[in-house]
Amino acid sequence: MIYALTVPQFSKMLDNLSAILHKAAAYADSKKFDVAVLLNSRLAPDQFALIRQVQICCDTAKLGVARLTGTLEQAPKHADDETTLAQLLQRIEDTKQYLAGFSAADFDEAATRTISQPRWEGKTLTGEQFLIQHMLPNFYFHLTTAYAILRHNGVEVGKKDYLGPMPYQGA
Amino acid sequence: MIYALTVPQFSKMLDNLSAILHKAAAYADSKKFDVAVLLNSRLAPDQFALIRQVQICCDTAKLGVARLTGTLEQAPKHADDETTLAQLLQRIEDTKQYLAGFSAADFDEAATRTISQPRWEGKTLTGEQFLIQHMLPNFYFHLTTAYAILRHNGVEVGKKDYLGPMPYQGA
Repeated sequence: MIYALTVPQFSKMLDNLSAILHKAAAYADSKKFDVAVLLNSRLAPDQFALIRQVQICCDTAKLGVARLTGTLEQAPKHADDETTLAQLLQRIEDTKQYLAGFSAADFDEAATRTISQPRWEGKTLTGEQFLIQHMLPNFYFHLTTAYAILRHNGVEVGKKDYLGPMPYQGA
Repeated sequence: MIYALTVPQFSKMLDNLSAILHKAAAYADSKKFDVAVLLNSRLAPDQFALIRQVQICCDTAKLGVARLTGTLEQAPKHADDETTLAQLLQRIEDTKQYLAGFSAADFDEAATRTISQPRWEGKTLTGEQFLIQHMLPNFYFHLTTAYAILRHNGVEVGKKDYLGPMPYQGA
């Protein structure tokens, strides 16, 4: 289930993120202001702006999957130097392409793998603890914050934009 | 893993939500305004205010677990009539107590259970699809939005308040 919780679901949510960024661009166009205003908006003066929220969201997916699969050394590096909408959309696309390289079998040992991060100063979590208590809450946190910055600034986004399509059966 | 993703993790995140609401109350006290101002704040005029975000967050946990365990009929009803901080904290506490009544074995058939909701008009998802694509993203969405409303209004909350303590080993 760890594969299903991460690779396809993150990929879908990153598509939704691209879609709301396109909505932001259309809104800026219609109001005749530069979309960069939205990209550099934030909800509080000491909070990261939208660009950084998108970067962290992408890295939570990329580095989380890399750590869970024990392939951190091979993960591509990103300089976090995006300033334009086009660059930000490309960052999302790069992340999706990276995720697409994994299969369910890559996560066979993920639940019990020992996970650490530089800022944890040598402390560790199991893969399952990391996934449930750190990676998933963080991913959705930065995605929702990106959404909230746009919502607060008048872009017409709703819950369906955030969740994306559901694979409904029947009726 | 469905139990671990929901019951203990939602319970922990609801504790974190209580804690940031207490921070909101302390902030209102220090600035000499009624905390009800924060409870009725929102990030956009057509978005739900903080009270409703907390109610939906609680119900996403309660009803999600009820549906996954096939016990929807027995789930307690809530009237969504909270107006004070004390009532909102009690709602969170009620939800935590409800969650505490479940064990991992209650989720044995959750992944393949057929899930529906009134607004889906007869359509269904499997339990695993519902959990991954609907319940988890929704729970974290409303939790993050509650956090964002407070953050935007000056309450000193940070990522650690949102994530809560990690069960680190070693070092």
